[in-house]
Amino acid sequence: MKLANMPYPFNPPTRVLMGPGPSDAHPRVLNAMARPLIGHLDPEFIRMMDEVKAMVQQAFITQNNLTFVVSAPGSAGMETCLVNLLEPGDECIICVNGVFGGRMVDIAERCGATVHRVDTEWGRVTEPDQIRKALDACPKPKLVALVHAETSTGARQPLEEISKLVHEADSLLVVDAVTSFCGVPLKVDEWGIDAIYTGTQKCLSAPPGLSPISFSEAAVRVLDNRKTKVQSWFLDLTMVKNYWSGAKRAYHHTGPVSSIFALHEALNIVLEEGLEARWARHQVVHQHLRTELEKRGFRFLVEESYRLPNLNSVFLPDGLDEVQLRSQLLNQYNIEVGGGLGAFAGKIWRVGIMGESATRNHVNMLVGALDELM
Amino acid sequence: MKLANMPYPFNPPTRVLMGPGPSDAHPRVLNAMARPLIGHLDPEFIRMMDEVKAMVQQAFITQNNLTFVVSAPGSAGMETCLVNLLEPGDECIICVNGVFGGRMVDIAERCGATVHRVDTEWGRVTEPDQIRKALDACPKPKLVALVHAETSTGARQPLEEISKLVHEADSLLVVDAVTSFCGVPLKVDEWGIDAIYTGTQKCLSAPPGLSPISFSEAAVRVLDNRKTKVQSWFLDLTMVKNYWSGAKRAYHHTGPVSSIFALHEALNIVLEEGLEARWARHQVVHQHLRTELEKRGFRFLVEESYRLPNLNSVFLPDGLDEVQLRSQLLNQYNIEVGGGLGAFAGKIWRVGIMGESATRNHVNMLVGALDELM
Repeated sequence: MKLANMPYPFNPPTRVLMGPGPSDAHPRVLNAMARPLIGHLDPEFIRMMDEVKAMVQQAFITQNNLTFVVSAPGSAGMETCLVNLLEPGDECIICVNGVFGGRMVDIAERCGATVHRVDTEWGRVTEPDQIRKALDACPKPKLVALVHAETSTGARQPLEEISKLVHEADSLLVVDAVTSFCGVPLKVDEWGIDAIYTGTQKCLSAPPGLSPISFSEAAVRVLDNRKTKVQSWFLDLTMVKNYWSGAKRAYHHTGPVSSIFALHEALNIVLEEGLEARWARHQVVHQHLRTELEKRGFRFLVEESYRLPNLNSVFLPDGLDEVQLRSQLLNQYNIEVGGGLGAFAGKIWRVGIMGESATRNHVNMLVGALDELM
Repeated sequence: MKLANMPYPFNPPTRVLMGPGPSDAHPRVLNAMARPLIGHLDPEFIRMMDEVKAMVQQAFITQNNLTFVVSAPGSAGMETCLVNLLEPGDECIICVNGVFGGRMVDIAERCGATVHRVDTEWGRVTEPDQIRKALDACPKPKLVALVHAETSTGARQPLEEISKLVHEADSLLVVDAVTSFCGVPLKVDEWGIDAIYTGTQKCLSAPPGLSPISFSEAAVRVLDNRKTKVQSWFLDLTMVKNYWSGAKRAYHHTGPVSSIFALHEALNIVLEEGLEARWARHQVVHQHLRTELEKRGFRFLVEESYRLPNLNSVFLPDGLDEVQLRSQLLNQYNIEVGGGLGAFAGKIWRVGIMGESATRNHVNMLVGALDELM
């Protein structure tokens, strides 16, 4: 019954993670993953979950009571938001300027909703006038969804003006904050975001596998007034919320204990640094990266005013083979940068400076290696 | 922006895990969780995923090519199997003799399927004659689903005779093996199981958060011939499978890197021990537990011939307050045992001896503590 060539020892190389995620994790977070397990209904674990919830609220800058963590990666957080708010026959508006807007359309359609797409060239952002026009065609959408930080392009979507339009239409604003959370300003209550999801492996610098989310009171009312069951049992917030809040914590599924240990430690680190300081650090390191890359002939895909500091999409200097150079970086220097997705596959790099990977040292390692290779 | 009482250090107590899961994890597995992260598309990670797949096949005793790991806990594995095989309007037969059969019914109904329930008293198992009768009423079900090891009761479901009936009806056999995997005999190919899911936190002794699954060729044909899209994007195997196999490994969602490190290590440990030796160990420790518990007046819920060795559901001796005693075990001895679920809440204990928790020392700790408390 044993495999012929057992055992398989696995000793991963020590990488420098500068792609679109995961980013480097702090040793404190890695150590938290290795804590001995405790039960997912242990009173000590439940108490720790309350702290996680309080810290996620703090990091989202929200008072929303329905704030907690989906036991699966960011894409499951996206599905959680849409599947709980949409019912068959609902109309919604979804803005698409990259891979993740497109993914929201796909999920919303699987929920049986009619989707009004607002398409924008990849690398650009959705303008308020496009939303006005979409609301003319569909004046009462159940929700309007946008990606705050499009990981496939590096574009940062302004949300405040669009939020006003969405609420004037008595609709819900749904936001993908997978790559912006804890890296750039994000203010859930102030900006009137009704449902938001993120991931752990970007600017939070925890391992991938969980998705913090938050629902406003308006979103909770929509959830409470559903006519049909949520089509996903696993992501059904009407049940999951009883594991994350309330006096009697009801078993729903087995919580991913170790990943929540790590999330707890990563949130501690974020709040010890302070959100503004963390946002500023990402911006400062971005300026350094930008200067050094532009010196070497890289050109940014996204216009300066909409550029994410933490996810840098750049065209390579002419004549360079992106696949070969990326592979040399990985194999000779252990540095990971990301390639392009979708329309930009083979054309751009996505250089992440997120969380623990947002340091001047990371930038210097990368440009030092590039100078030797180019 | 800092929380008033930050930071929140978390130093969990060192528990002895003898509930329905998670079980104690081996230090090698905990250490694997703490390895520095690498990218989820890193060639080294992809190579390691191939080893995980080979070891999951080995542990399921299957040649199924569509064998891999869902990036979420066992309940998501359950939903993955049902949501990929069922389409609106399909008929299916689901056997219910505890919480998890009931959960399958709920999920199948959310898929738009018509469910023919085969109900059996909790603690007992489904008899082949019940399946014959169900097939008379519904001769061409898309699938017949059963729970191999009902975690809510500790009953072990015989599958071979039922498998023949299911295949004579040209239907698919779907099996929940969350609590049996790596703890009791389970032979996917020999028993003709078409779709199976399990969890990592039971007899495998890895942290909770992942769900290994496997689909037979017949199940893959059903998947390939779907008329509608799978209603869950996150769990859609027509896409996820391209991340886990094939020459070009396509990005679907960000894989939970650290949890897969741990799974890899836990599977190594299982196969180093050998499946038969591991099954035998669970049986031997069960005999010891049984003797000691019966001496003290505990009575087993499940008839001996259908009793799982690893999940022991017992009525307490008369006059004992189960909540108080369970809480004393946890608070004074750091020993976790599980309470009853559903109909058995407040009436039974569920004592798990699974994976690393299946040792004579665990049993002796438990009964020693009970002697002092009772």
